[in-house]
Amino acid sequence: MKNRQDRLIFVTNDDGFDAPGLRVLLNVARRFGDVICVAPETTQSGMSQSITMYRPLFLREIAKEESNGLGSLERYAFSGTPVDCVKIAFDYFLKDRKVDLALSGINHGSNSAANILYSGTMGGAIESSFYNCPSIGFSLNDHSLNADFSHVEPFVERIIEAALGGVEIPFCLNVNIPTGEPRGIKICRQNKGYWREDFFCRKDPRGKEYFWLTGDFVNSEPDATDTDEWALANGYVSVVPVQTDMTAYEKIDTLKQMGLEG
Amino acid sequence: MKNRQDRLIFVTNDDGFDAPGLRVLLNVARRFGDVICVAPETTQSGMSQSITMYRPLFLREIAKEESNGLGSLERYAFSGTPVDCVKIAFDYFLKDRKVDLALSGINHGSNSAANILYSGTMGGAIESSFYNCPSIGFSLNDHSLNADFSHVEPFVERIIEAALGGVEIPFCLNVNIPTGEPRGIKICRQNKGYWREDFFCRKDPRGKEYFWLTGDFVNSEPDATDTDEWALANGYVSVVPVQTDMTAYEKIDTLKQMGLEG
Repeated sequence: MKNRQDRLIFVTNDDGFDAPGLRVLLNVARRFGDVICVAPETTQSGMSQSITMYRPLFLREIAKEESNGLGSLERYAFSGTPVDCVKIAFDYFLKDRKVDLALSGINHGSNSAANILYSGTMGGAIESSFYNCPSIGFSLNDHSLNADFSHVEPFVERIIEAALGGVEIPFCLNVNIPTGEPRGIKICRQNKGYWREDFFCRKDPRGKEYFWLTGDFVNSEPDATDTDEWALANGYVSVVPVQTDMTAYEKIDTLKQMGLEG
Repeated sequence: MKNRQDRLIFVTNDDGFDAPGLRVLLNVARRFGDVICVAPETTQSGMSQSITMYRPLFLREIAKEESNGLGSLERYAFSGTPVDCVKIAFDYFLKDRKVDLALSGINHGSNSAANILYSGTMGGAIESSFYNCPSIGFSLNDHSLNADFSHVEPFVERIIEAALGGVEIPFCLNVNIPTGEPRGIKICRQNKGYWREDFFCRKDPRGKEYFWLTGDFVNSEPDATDTDEWALANGYVSVVPVQTDMTAYEKIDTLKQMGLEG
């Protein structure tokens, strides 16, 4: 394993460059190497793996901190999505450097189950996994800005250590942390389910009707005990290994038998 | 199979409510049933499965056309993402109606391979598949606004017919159509690969540096012949059945053996 002095770690998030959860992750990351953080200027929750195609983006240096018993830290804000942050980092100003690990989070709010599909945090983690380093997205099951992160560090450290211990690439984890002291770590699969929305419908100051998205997760398998949703609900840190092939392989033959090919 | 008069079809896209590709899809859809279209006010390319959480959204009626040898058509524009369009349709004003089929597209530009992860078109199709109806995302391998869609209708019709012929739910297809007369339809898997970006870097009118995303797809398996990327490049309509479980199942045991659990 490399020494801390030789490691370069990339960090992003979706709550924005000054989110408390990001600060916690940066503190832990610096114990493992020098850290470059490129995070969004503004909140990007729910931005999934989206990219900014139709407008220019601006990069702003926030701060540089020298190594001080920890790895050095460079922080930047970028005016795009988490995936834009990953791309400007890996394809532009880290282009000729070897990155040893990419981290995203710690998100304020869980990204278990179908939430992975909408999550900007996981968008950033998944995108990072395309750049030949292990990547991990971390989320805490508490949406509030002043969420209590005091219990998370030992678990974040332990999972980072595992990822740095030599893993097969591509390697991407979706990690969700409960509120309160966890009972341990569970390796899980993604829970099946979906969201049903309940739109707020009000009138704006000029009398025009508007809609505001809100909703509830519907768990399609509430009795399953090997899922991230179950682990999180039962006080465990859930760890789901993530892949990006969305092919429904079991349906390929069915479609061929339907005579659709040819 | 239901009659055309008894069917309700939902249509969205990511290029916006007045895109030429959407008009083609609406024309075909009306041959199969009454059509409700909720499409974004503005282009949403690259918006993936993102949702709008932090601002209100506005719905605008564009036009209603009565049945006229075809199904009736209602068109709306919504100020959010393709997924927002799906949600306002299924969870708000179609809430008590049975939708028989959901369509997204026809996108100007292909969504084969890893593009499915960033695609607003496929974001809309995937989201629709959570609402108990078959869903299909269509894309044409031509980005231009005045792309030639003259060859696509028989293939779009044939795939819609298959989806309406009785399929197991959830059912979601990623369909990509080549330019020029297709050689036929291939049932495929998603091609492995990723994007590498080449940021345009210029100065704005006030001398501030900006970045603009551009890039190239890197095909990780150029020799594979069972992928959507191969089919499209070789003149076939590619059809990939899509699922939303992103668990890397083959890595669950590896992570357990690493001692990460507990």
